[in-house]
Amino acid sequence: MAGSAVEVLARCRELVRPGLVEAVGRLDPWTGEMAAYALGWRDTNGDPDPAASEGKGLRQALAVLSAEAVGADGKVAGPAAVAVELVHAFSLVHDDIMDGDPVRRRRAAVWRSYGVGPAVLAGDALHALAVRSLAETPGDRAPSAVRRLCLALTLLVRGQADDLRFESLPWSGPTAVGPAGYRVMVEHKTGSLLGCAAALGAELGEAPAETVTALDRAGRHLGIAFQIVDDLLGIWGDPQVTGKPVHSDLRQRKKTYPVLAALTGNGPAARELAVLLEGTEPLEGAAASRAALLVDEAGGRAAARAEAREQLNAARACLDGIRLDPVAVRELELLVGFLLDRTS
Amino acid sequence: MAGSAVEVLARCRELVRPGLVEAVGRLDPWTGEMAAYALGWRDTNGDPDPAASEGKGLRQALAVLSAEAVGADGKVAGPAAVAVELVHAFSLVHDDIMDGDPVRRRRAAVWRSYGVGPAVLAGDALHALAVRSLAETPGDRAPSAVRRLCLALTLLVRGQADDLRFESLPWSGPTAVGPAGYRVMVEHKTGSLLGCAAALGAELGEAPAETVTALDRAGRHLGIAFQIVDDLLGIWGDPQVTGKPVHSDLRQRKKTYPVLAALTGNGPAARELAVLLEGTEPLEGAAASRAALLVDEAGGRAAARAEAREQLNAARACLDGIRLDPVAVRELELLVGFLLDRTS
Repeated sequence: MAGSAVEVLARCRELVRPGLVEAVGRLDPWTGEMAAYALGWRDTNGDPDPAASEGKGLRQALAVLSAEAVGADGKVAGPAAVAVELVHAFSLVHDDIMDGDPVRRRRAAVWRSYGVGPAVLAGDALHALAVRSLAETPGDRAPSAVRRLCLALTLLVRGQADDLRFESLPWSGPTAVGPAGYRVMVEHKTGSLLGCAAALGAELGEAPAETVTALDRAGRHLGIAFQIVDDLLGIWGDPQVTGKPVHSDLRQRKKTYPVLAALTGNGPAARELAVLLEGTEPLEGAAASRAALLVDEAGGRAAARAEAREQLNAARACLDGIRLDPVAVRELELLVGFLLDRTS
Repeated sequence: MAGSAVEVLARCRELVRPGLVEAVGRLDPWTGEMAAYALGWRDTNGDPDPAASEGKGLRQALAVLSAEAVGADGKVAGPAAVAVELVHAFSLVHDDIMDGDPVRRRRAAVWRSYGVGPAVLAGDALHALAVRSLAETPGDRAPSAVRRLCLALTLLVRGQADDLRFESLPWSGPTAVGPAGYRVMVEHKTGSLLGCAAALGAELGEAPAETVTALDRAGRHLGIAFQIVDDLLGIWGDPQVTGKPVHSDLRQRKKTYPVLAALTGNGPAARELAVLLEGTEPLEGAAASRAALLVDEAGGRAAARAEAREQLNAARACLDGIRLDPVAVRELELLVGFLLDRTS
């Protein structure tokens, strides 16, 4: 099957959709309504919301393509794809509460539309439903798949804890976060679920254990690369395309990879950047632009791009010597290229 | 083994404790610290908190005693007991956020001590850990046990959704909540986890399917009875013992069983009660006392007591014809008697 990355994502989405709709249909009406809003299916009146984004659907696509890569029908990955999409939706609903982010995919976050308490509940419902839908999958691979999903869930929470904790850590000194600490955090927060998605697809496709493990590892590296590209877009992305203000991550003094990498330098740009970030004045307008320039001058932008490339190479290396279906692998490559070159 | 209900609870707690400590030790330091606070093990400085209450430990005791009742060593129920206690802790942490309750077991709720965002995270960590700890239990009963726990988790969320939704429903008219609707909500919110605890103990004790199902059903009825006793204490409990203001549930216009049962009456007390509850003035002092008297006069208190007794009889009826160890059943009876006659 040929086609562009967008077509690959759309094909996987169509394949997974019936199972996802069925799973969400098992929720009680209230959390089901919030889940449909969170997933971009409905507006707050419960009406279809064709303008809403459902997200890229990367996790479900990874599950489907991994099953196909191990020679199975993509449909066998359905329960895994449903589970990882539900986990992703749960984590976004709760993360937006924790981060105080009022906007998600250009719409009000669930907590802004329904209130914090109901949003906590909606996330809990999606979390429980994710595990339940996989646990109730027939077949002798399900118990191992559930253990894998549970492990990813605890790692994802650990990553989110580190991410929140990083906010309160200083920019320099012995307790400062460096690029290495950031990589660990992001491997947990983003990589563990991407790795889990790929591994579960292979697992339900009845692949041998070493193939499942290899895809898990590859997915983790891909997750780190994916997040670093997010970080680059958070500073230099086009506001018209990303929907976020120019230099948005710098304005919020987020500890992202390009910034942390820039701060490891010893030159004047790194030093001036440190002073700017350690200051207490708001980083708006000219100050944010200056900070972006300094991150670039201190090598942070180049280091982030190099790191994303390296993580991608590491992902490929995990699959060396693993027998995979070449058509599915080409689609995976297409997808990965699209995700890393994206502009939003 | 003889002994009082308090001794039974203590014995079960001691048996489960090592597994619970080990499970919580797998959390990252931050969510682990919040979990230790939520479980009553530590204060906010991370120091031991001997004054804090760990709760009754009803769920872990049900799991252990059910395993013993089916002829197994109570220790085999350890992973189930750990899982249900963690689910209970998760639900309390999140419920306190949803309900805006600042106090839990005479201490600040987790969200009051650590903030709403971190409390959401702590709950998520406990939720994920609960399922993971059971999923990683060896033995061929684990997959079925995990499915049972997942089902209980989705029902618990459904019950919490109904409970929150009930707040906004009117006291009378076609959409009003009645005693029957309340029973369904409470069976989900409280009964499903009590039933799950009992069933999981029996399941890990390798009991036949009909015994597991019978204990699940019995636990659900017990949960309804347990919650109705809570409701009675929420109105007529001794503030010195419960730690809550006198008539606390009435002051907050909570839709509890005694009140809903009272409102089904046609007499003058029921009518006056309806007027009081439908009003917008705060129900403090004399008004709350008057409301309590009216609930009593309209038969709500007696109806609640009768309902609790009936649910208990239904629980016993579920176990009719099921072969259980008489010593364990005596301990269960002791425990149930204690829980229903408790004063806090």
